Parts: sequence; C-alpha cells; structure tokens
Amino acid sequence: MSEQEQNNKEFLDLVKRFKFIRVLDSNPQAKILSMLGSIDKKDAIITVEKTHFAMEETVRRQSQDGEDVPVLYRCEDEFSCINGIEQLKEITSNDIYHWGMTVLKQDMEHNPTAKLNLIWPATPVHIKKYEQQNFHLVKETPEIYQRVVKPYIDELSQGTRLNWVNNILYEGAEASQVVYKDFNVQDKKNGFIILPDMKWDGVNLDSLYLVALVYRDDIRSLRDLKPDDKEWLQLLVKKIKSIVPGCYNHAIHPDELRIFIHYQPSYYHFHIHIVNVKHQGLGNGIATGKAILVEDVIESLNYLGPKGFEARTLNYVIGENHDLWKRGLDKEVAKQLEQEGIPKMPTVNQGYSL
Amino acid sequence: MSEQEQNNKEFLDLVKRFKFIRVLDSNPQAKILSMLGSIDKKDAIITVEKTHFAMEETVRRQSQDGEDVPVLYRCEDEFSCINGIEQLKEITSNDIYHWGMTVLKQDMEHNPTAKLNLIWPATPVHIKKYEQQNFHLVKETPEIYQRVVKPYIDELSQGTRLNWVNNILYEGAEASQVVYKDFNVQDKKNGFIILPDMKWDGVNLDSLYLVALVYRDDIRSLRDLKPDDKEWLQLLVKKIKSIVPGCYNHAIHPDELRIFIHYQPSYYHFHIHIVNVKHQGLGNGIATGKAILVEDVIESLNYLGPKGFEARTLNYVIGENHDLWKRGLDKEVAKQLEQEGIPKMPTVNQGYSL
Repeated sequence: MSEQEQNNKEFLDLVKRFKFIRVLDSNPQAKILSMLGSIDKKDAIITVEKTHFAMEETVRRQSQDGEDVPVLYRCEDEFSCINGIEQLKEITSNDIYHWGMTVLKQDMEHNPTAKLNLIWPATPVHIKKYEQQNFHLVKETPEIYQRVVKPYIDELSQGTRLNWVNNILYEGAEASQVVYKDFNVQDKKNGFIILPDMKWDGVNLDSLYLVALVYRDDIRSLRDLKPDDKEWLQLLVKKIKSIVPGCYNHAIHPDELRIFIHYQPSYYHFHIHIVNVKHQGLGNGIATGKAILVEDVIESLNYLGPKGFEARTLNYVIGENHDLWKRGLDKEVAKQLEQEGIPKMPTVNQGYSL
Repeated sequence: MSEQEQNNKEFLDLVKRFKFIRVLDSNPQAKILSMLGSIDKKDAIITVEKTHFAMEETVRRQSQDGEDVPVLYRCEDEFSCINGIEQLKEITSNDIYHWGMTVLKQDMEHNPTAKLNLIWPATPVHIKKYEQQNFHLVKETPEIYQRVVKPYIDELSQGTRLNWVNNILYEGAEASQVVYKDFNVQDKKNGFIILPDMKWDGVNLDSLYLVALVYRDDIRSLRDLKPDDKEWLQLLVKKIKSIVPGCYNHAIHPDELRIFIHYQPSYYHFHIHIVNVKHQGLGNGIATGKAILVEDVIESLNYLGPKGFEARTLNYVIGENHDLWKRGLDKEVAKQLEQEGIPKMPTVNQGYSL
C-alpha cells in the first residue's frame, strides 16, 4: 500500500467513525455544510463543499470585439457537464423555459463531488466559529429605537470600546495600511481616512473593499443623520468617488463603486463601506435589510423631516447572536407579528413534510 | 411510457443535441455555470447549478436552551453526506486539520447532482442577461425616468413578451408548481399567486426562494407605486407572511423572510421576491442597489408626495448588457459624474499595479 493509500485509508477510517450531532451551518448558495459530531468521544467538525463544474483549467480568449471571454478548456471531455449527463428529469417547462434535475458522472480524479475538511479534536472556539445563527427581520420604529436601541448605543459609546478608532484617526495605528487621509485640524468636521477592510485581500481589485472612517464623532449611526448633514455627506461621497479610482490607477471607475452604510453597524462611529460593484459574494453585508446606499441616504434626507432618520421606521435583518436581539428586539418582533395579525406558529410541530 | 418518462426523454433528447459554443458566465463560489450553445441551429442557454448537500427535508428542533436549531432530517440515510461517502482522498493534514476530496453517492430521486435550466430558443436579450458583464451605479432622476426608462418599459409592455405571466395567472401554466393562489374575479385587485423562483431547487428550505405575482397589471415597476397603493401593498405583504410559513409546515417563520422587489426588475409586471433571510448568497439579487425591502417601500410611501416613486431619484446598479445602459444610461452616468465634479479617468491607462 502506497503512502497516499495509507493516508486515505486512515482519513476514511476517521471520517467513518464520525457520529453526527447537529448541523452547525448550512450555506445553500455556496453549497457548504458544516456539521458537529464526535469521533471517539471527542468533538469533530466536518465541513463539506461541492466542487464547481468540471473545467479544470478555465482560460480566457479574445472575442471578436477584443473582449476577454472565459472559455471551458475541457468542454469536450467526458466529465464536462453536458457530456457527463447520466440522467435528466424534467421538473417543468413553460414556453421556451425548461427546468430539470440531473445526475452527472463523477470521478475521484477528474470530477470529485466535494471538498471535505475535518477538524478533530475541535475546541469550543472552533465550534462557535462554524456555528450559524438564526436571523430575523426587525421593524425598528422610532419608539423602539429610543427605548431599546439608543440605550445600547449609549452604553457602547462609553469607555474604551472605540479606542481602536481613535488610534487609527489620531495615533497613526494601521498607518501603513491607510489608502487616503484627509485631515486638517481647522476643519475636523470634513476629515476622513480611507483604509482597506479586513475582508479584502488587498490584491484582487474585483473584490476591492475599503472603509472610510470620518473624524466627526457626533454621528454614531444612520439614526443620527439629519437634513443638516446632507451637504456634509454629499461632499464626503464626492471626495470618495474622486479619490479612490486614482488610488488604484483608475482601473476602477467612480460609478463602479457600491458605497453604503450598515444598520445596525458593527461599531457606532460613522463609517462608510466602499466596494467594487462586481463583488457580489458578501452575503448579508451588501444585502438589502443591512446595507443602504449612501445615495439613498442622501435622497431620503430630502423627504424626512428635521429629525431625519431618528423619526423613521428602519427595517433590517439581525442575528440572534447580536446583543440587541436578546435585549428586547426578540420580544418586539413577536409583539409586532401579533399586532399585524400574522398567525403564530402552532406550538406542536410534528416534523416537516412538503 | 408514463407522461413524466416521455417528458424526460424529450428533454434529454433536446439537451443532448446542445452544441457548446462558449461559457457565458461561471460562478465558482455558487457553483453555477451558464453556457451558450445551439440546438438545431437555434441559440440555446444551459445553466447548471450544483445542488446543496442532501437534506431533502430540513426540520428544526428545540435545543436544550429552548432555541430552534436546524436539523438534518435525513442525516441517518444512505445519501446524507457522511454515509454517502464512496471514496475519500486526503490532500493534506496538519495537526488537528485534515483536508480531502470525496465522491458521494448520487441518485436522481434522493440526491441529484445539479439543477439544469434550458432556454431554447434563446433571444439575444436572454444571452445578454446571462453573460458576464461590467456593472455601473446609476442615479435615475425622475427626468431620466421619463425620458429614457419609461419609453423602454412602454415598449416592453407591448406585444407578447409578458404572455408567460398571463399563462401563469390565467391559463394554468406551471400549475403544478403553484404554492398558493388567491384569486377572486370580483376582487382581481387583491389577487396574487405564489410560486417557486427558478433559482430555488424546490427542496432545501434554507434557500427558499418564492415569487409572488400580482393580478393587478397597472403596476409595471416600483416607479408606478403611489401613496394610494400603500394599503394594498401592506395587505399583500401581510398575506405573504401569513401564508408562506404554513405552506412549509412552519419550518420557516414570518420574520425569517426577506421580502423585496427589484429595480430594475427583469420583467415589468409587479412581482415580489420572498427569500429565506439565511440565504445570503444571491449576489446582486439581494444587494442594496438592486433589491429594496417591501417594508422600506411601504415606509417610503409615507414620505413621498402624491406622485410616489415617480418623483424620486432611484439609485441602482445596472449591467452593461442591460438594454437601458446602451439606450442612454451610459451617457447619463458620464454626464452626472462631470456635473458632480468628479475627475475623469485619464485617457491613457498603463494597466493596473498596486
């Protein structure tokens, strides 16, 4: 038995001893599943991810009009997806549209089903990292903001929690990372600093992700923006659109930036997300119900009264791990559904069947 | 031969005649591949998407601390991913971390490989829609809407282009797929029909994706919504939230639905997207700058004047393949950037380097 065969055998023995406990996370879009189980009474995490369609080498060639187009290098081999069809079942069809399910030929070397990662023994930190939380859509009225959310933001704004922001703004922390800094002591209000977000690899422009931190410290979130701030925000966005393309040799254009804020944000010092419009794999981070285009924020300030966003109802998605969920949003959501007359879930749930 | 077998055979015959021309788009993150080809000398588009891991029925059970956790209903059957391992190959291992590739058992009924969609014959519009493209952020003012966008929508609303919608609403097309139908001839205005979106596999609740089509045909897009429509829309959303959980045995709750519309939509007959909040990987489809929560639409109708969304500036992301881009939005974007004083890109661009 070769060394590879020996390794495969040991790996398979290990995985086959895995006793399933529960699903930690399931990502249907990326086709990734993380499971908690145990192997020899010690916690184990198995994560599986489906492979992309067989095209071992994707090359790009020039089309007639000079544009690069992706090409399937192996489109003619037995595992390429049309040739590899073993079974096909029609689900439905309507006019020119046909939907079906298919079974495709697999092969360990040329077309495996999935990547499989095992962590064993896994610690509680590993488990928490892989675990999915449930999300809920919350309707935050001005009243709920004042009663539940504002006290929470007030608490978080005290103490040393935002020291890291001040370190960046005033103490030169992460200075080597800074993409652009616009700060004049005489004009602190219009100052800002742009730096790469943690989620960006710093290299691939297709996934460009920057953050602009402002020097103003009187805006803790969207809720604090008033019509008076409209011009300030407009100027800030104009500067961002003018500066960022130049920082990357104009390989990205001002209208190719998706510029937005989060509500709830992950920290309560006003900051703006700047992302390549092409970058779509950010999940909840760019989703409606979390991300709001700054252009829409500016537009809304035209319609909202003098109190601005403080007086508006904001709808957003929140995870159960967020402190605000346990601090009262859970009860507000239940109350609202009842008030709206949406039927409660039956208390007895005898399993699921279509 | 049963009708299903006959349909399957015809579908397979069609797909087997597909002659590959080129890849239109490849999304390795979502494991989706779109190909252009021809069948009987007419253009055809095949889009394949890998299935998520076998958990035909996802149920939720209470954990010890009273929380709902997702559970693999079929975790013990022969297709669940650990039991289904046919081969496993170790790539490498380091301490507690092990990586490998695996081949899993497949089955047309219980664990198919991929969803396959065919559009045939496909028009140039279809091809454009599926093709990889550059995206831009557009600021559509009321004036641009009237001058550029409305004439386009007017054109698309004529002829037979929306026949498939009427087929569903009135002719019983896709009837076997319908999740819920609420239609009363006396009350056409409040009628709607809910059916699975093409992007859903129809099985895995984590990626639940439904569409509600309304019987009203006087609302072609967000632009046509006026304050008068607020109550109608509210009632519609309330019904959706009340009905959908019941259709799936309450394995999904009303506050776990992300309910939104698109602007620009892909067709100009008012429809609403209903998606599991967990399903985050829909790219631009749920991103700010394309998707707008219906709750935000309803909220906005409180502030907008009697003309509603017709009088508002709408900001959104549009691809270069969209007809509207070439029909004038390209020039509007350039003009706006100039008016806003954002510097133009230098005409000589010597490539990109960090």
